Amino acid sequence: MKLYDYAYSSAGYRARIALNLKGLKYERSVVNLIKDGGQQHSAAYKAVNPQELIPTLETDGRVIGQSLAIVEYLDETYPTPPLLPSYPAEKARVRQIAYEIACDIHPINNQRVRQHLKALGHSEEEILSKWYAHWIAIGFAALETQLSGSKETGQFCHGDTPTLADICLVPQMANAYRFKVPVDAFPTLVRIDAACRALPAFAAAAPEKQPDAA
Amino acid sequence: MKLYDYAYSSAGYRARIALNLKGLKYERSVVNLIKDGGQQHSAAYKAVNPQELIPTLETDGRVIGQSLAIVEYLDETYPTPPLLPSYPAEKARVRQIAYEIACDIHPINNQRVRQHLKALGHSEEEILSKWYAHWIAIGFAALETQLSGSKETGQFCHGDTPTLADICLVPQMANAYRFKVPVDAFPTLVRIDAACRALPAFAAAAPEKQPDAA
Repeated sequence: MKLYDYAYSSAGYRARIALNLKGLKYERSVVNLIKDGGQQHSAAYKAVNPQELIPTLETDGRVIGQSLAIVEYLDETYPTPPLLPSYPAEKARVRQIAYEIACDIHPINNQRVRQHLKALGHSEEEILSKWYAHWIAIGFAALETQLSGSKETGQFCHGDTPTLADICLVPQMANAYRFKVPVDAFPTLVRIDAACRALPAFAAAAPEKQPDAA
Repeated sequence: MKLYDYAYSSAGYRARIALNLKGLKYERSVVNLIKDGGQQHSAAYKAVNPQELIPTLETDGRVIGQSLAIVEYLDETYPTPPLLPSYPAEKARVRQIAYEIACDIHPINNQRVRQHLKALGHSEEEILSKWYAHWIAIGFAALETQLSGSKETGQFCHGDTPTLADICLVPQMANAYRFKVPVDAFPTLVRIDAACRALPAFAAAAPEKQPDAA
């Protein structure tokens, strides 16, 4: 099992957490998003993933891109421990939380989008304060309302075992901390993030624990 | 079953296609994204969906936001006809295609993002030509490579029955046509989109067929 990955890719971070939670051994092939103008744009990597995005998982003769497709595949193929609850309505709640991050926060703030904003004339400072922090604040505010107001929230986003929702939350919180986006207004997210990071599977997946970390 | 929806919401469009493919009757509650400064920001709708985004499905006493969470829920709860293949590796392919659109094209071009770009000083013309068209072109180019190069592509994105991938593709193609983004370079996408729109479930879900269409 081979994961094309980069320490500071938060989508890659999701895949690492899922692989660790499942107790799966995997080889990492580092695709450095900074070096050589972005190694994800190399012909070799484009042949693996035409989207030129991280991560990609090679397993069982298949090549799977998109972190959430990877997590769902791992959950179906290696069911223990489950990363989604059993009941469809509960699965829907977990997926809703996951997609709020994976669709409506992360991709808008992704490296290629920030690079494009720079090409359109925005300064690094403006991109950080008026874009990056803006989408995190809006997204986290909605999540805080939902998570703090639901009895289904437990030690983690859904109950007392980690799920796909936590797999998305932790890397997004790491991005917020890394770029010093204030999180004081989101105590439930802060609490759940800390609970996750106390688990070895999450801790070992952290960007700073990867050999390619700066 | 009640769907909070707007004719021109492409995420709402996805939910409508899925409901139609499943043959489910549903009531629509229109949340007009233009009127009243955006009815999705009303206190009443925020109580339903703190994200202030469309669509939301109310069913079986649950409130489900995020279109893909809605589609997966419907597929689990009403299994016929299936919207995902049976095998995990094939599911992963379908989800990968779906997420390439639902994470990496659509949210970056969504109305609230365009409004924010306008607030940062960009003209409508610039937003359309240097942003909206840009992300569609990049995303569609990757999809065209993947779909045209795979034997698993059939009449539809995966085989000869519509799946979650087609449910995401058709509304994104509609956005491209609506804003006159060129699609000549993507013949496989054009072909699959036309095949989908020939089906009654897709046709009836089209924005222009909704009572709240302009």
